[in-house]
Amino acid sequence: MNNKQQRADFSMGPVCPIPIQEYPQVLLAHGGGGKLMHQLIQKMFGPTFANPLLDAGHDGAVFSLEGKRLAFTTDSYVINPIFFPGGDIGSLAVHGTVNDLAMCGARPLYLSVGFILEEGLSMETLWQIVQSMKAAADHCGVQIVTGDTKVVDKGKGDGIFINTSGVGVVAEGVDVRPQRISEGDVIIVSGDLGRHGIAIMAMREGLEFESVIESDSAPVAGPIQDLLQAGVDVHCLRDLTRGGLASATNELAESAGVQIEIDERAIPIRDDVRAACEILGLDPLYIANEGRFVAFVAEKDADRAVEILRRHAVSEQAAVIGQVRSADRPVVVLHSQIGTRRILDMISGEQLPRIC
Amino acid sequence: MNNKQQRADFSMGPVCPIPIQEYPQVLLAHGGGGKLMHQLIQKMFGPTFANPLLDAGHDGAVFSLEGKRLAFTTDSYVINPIFFPGGDIGSLAVHGTVNDLAMCGARPLYLSVGFILEEGLSMETLWQIVQSMKAAADHCGVQIVTGDTKVVDKGKGDGIFINTSGVGVVAEGVDVRPQRISEGDVIIVSGDLGRHGIAIMAMREGLEFESVIESDSAPVAGPIQDLLQAGVDVHCLRDLTRGGLASATNELAESAGVQIEIDERAIPIRDDVRAACEILGLDPLYIANEGRFVAFVAEKDADRAVEILRRHAVSEQAAVIGQVRSADRPVVVLHSQIGTRRILDMISGEQLPRIC
Repeated sequence: MNNKQQRADFSMGPVCPIPIQEYPQVLLAHGGGGKLMHQLIQKMFGPTFANPLLDAGHDGAVFSLEGKRLAFTTDSYVINPIFFPGGDIGSLAVHGTVNDLAMCGARPLYLSVGFILEEGLSMETLWQIVQSMKAAADHCGVQIVTGDTKVVDKGKGDGIFINTSGVGVVAEGVDVRPQRISEGDVIIVSGDLGRHGIAIMAMREGLEFESVIESDSAPVAGPIQDLLQAGVDVHCLRDLTRGGLASATNELAESAGVQIEIDERAIPIRDDVRAACEILGLDPLYIANEGRFVAFVAEKDADRAVEILRRHAVSEQAAVIGQVRSADRPVVVLHSQIGTRRILDMISGEQLPRIC
Repeated sequence: MNNKQQRADFSMGPVCPIPIQEYPQVLLAHGGGGKLMHQLIQKMFGPTFANPLLDAGHDGAVFSLEGKRLAFTTDSYVINPIFFPGGDIGSLAVHGTVNDLAMCGARPLYLSVGFILEEGLSMETLWQIVQSMKAAADHCGVQIVTGDTKVVDKGKGDGIFINTSGVGVVAEGVDVRPQRISEGDVIIVSGDLGRHGIAIMAMREGLEFESVIESDSAPVAGPIQDLLQAGVDVHCLRDLTRGGLASATNELAESAGVQIEIDERAIPIRDDVRAACEILGLDPLYIANEGRFVAFVAEKDADRAVEILRRHAVSEQAAVIGQVRSADRPVVVLHSQIGTRRILDMISGEQLPRIC
């Protein structure tokens, strides 16, 4: 018995949809939220597992069970370092999955947690992370109801990886998905961009700024539930994690087949974040956030939506940043600071690996 | 900004419930399905995240949403090697979570998949695993409806880890949980034990036997749905994964507060598996299986339950192996091959690391 024998029955199967000559191996960029990850999802995972729920291209699956609509999402967290200004891998794993449920228009209810621990992880560190998850879950009003623990040998992991999956309920009448994005929709960003990525990057590089830039890691289910309960006609929601605003809007432009126009001057970015981006050579529009989202709302409801979002601390800087202009072709156009107009493309490589 | 500063706010919190002097670091055995994993769950995760769903000590959480009962489970798969006789990490990740749902008495419906890939993983290998997951999902009648992909730098993972979480529905009248185990319940094992663990161990050690021992990795939701639909009074179900029959029965004895008696001679074990166990110095009752479970059923229904299980290939060797004898104290008593009577304890250390 050998490895080759065991794998023989695959040799007659369909050919790998990713060009092996070009990409014989998985690269960091395949997890970076940009073009390569998109290719992996679009060419390999999507067509293989194809079903209407997955094909929706949502942050999670929304399905009906005897008239009741549920949302179901999953995310693994491999962030490095595991403790950072404004959070840690534990709180991040709760916020991230709560936010994915929120992006489906769901009220988050239950989370699962799967730990992959590396042999030798400090028990005290694990304890701190577990406490942080509990505090975050309480803050979000969700319960961690089931779990799993695996330990891998030293050198085969990196301290701790956490998967959280989540289940939530979608209220009647709520219909939030990329396909509902249409011409005229107003695009609202929920707050200032770039803090999570810069906080992580600064720690990794040992950079010190005048003030510590903290991650924006936070749950956003509250303001979204308020929008939906107020009857705001929300067409689509998307959190601005890996790949940032640029990747999120590109994905949505493609899913919905629309042209999105964004006014760069309207995007809230803190001065310290902007300065850090310049030092690090990063574009804040591509940087991951962990407590920020865009909402596509019917034009008539835009002002009201901003007003509702601003009532919550986590989205008090909500601002209109653009509009869906036409259903011509899937592209994102950026009206830049200096008045030029350019295509805002999806990120190509890996900007910041292991940011979440 | 440094790591110490960021973690300062934990220092005033509750003391780590695992004795740090004794276990300053996470050991492989903390994921091995035995005493240390049990301690981690009972002392750290359980009390911290405490809620009625988690406290049930089930293979998953069963909750009601407006009258409809759902099951929700999660498992991460870190098996090494990723291809083995009878399966691979992809099919295992589907079967394992489908089986966890089945153990809750649920009909499995939807799975999520979270990949943690190591930079440098062969794209062809990923493709084979993805195809295998699809084939397994089709075979189980479940859909993979949402997913996530992370890539970690080379040397910080081990090729591929997969988390699958699952959602299923529990039919009306079905009430399967450890607390329902009661005196007189008959214990049925669904088939021969030890093949999964031995298949993996043989590959790792480069052992060759006369015939290849294949893993028993398989979905068992079909026979369980048949039991439930036939109205068999199933009190509890538990799959025999990490820690094998010994750990599963010990956990259940503790959860239900009962004494379990098992007749070793009644446990089906293949001769080649028994021989391999002797060579490797392993006890088959502690070895992980990936397509085997025990059912605790009301005595009146025992014969009928065995008959129904034997109609399915995956459980054609189902056999009565014991009975719940009293509610005195939580212990498992084994009537051995040679006629002696001994306590069957939970496994202490790590018997076979990274078996699933």
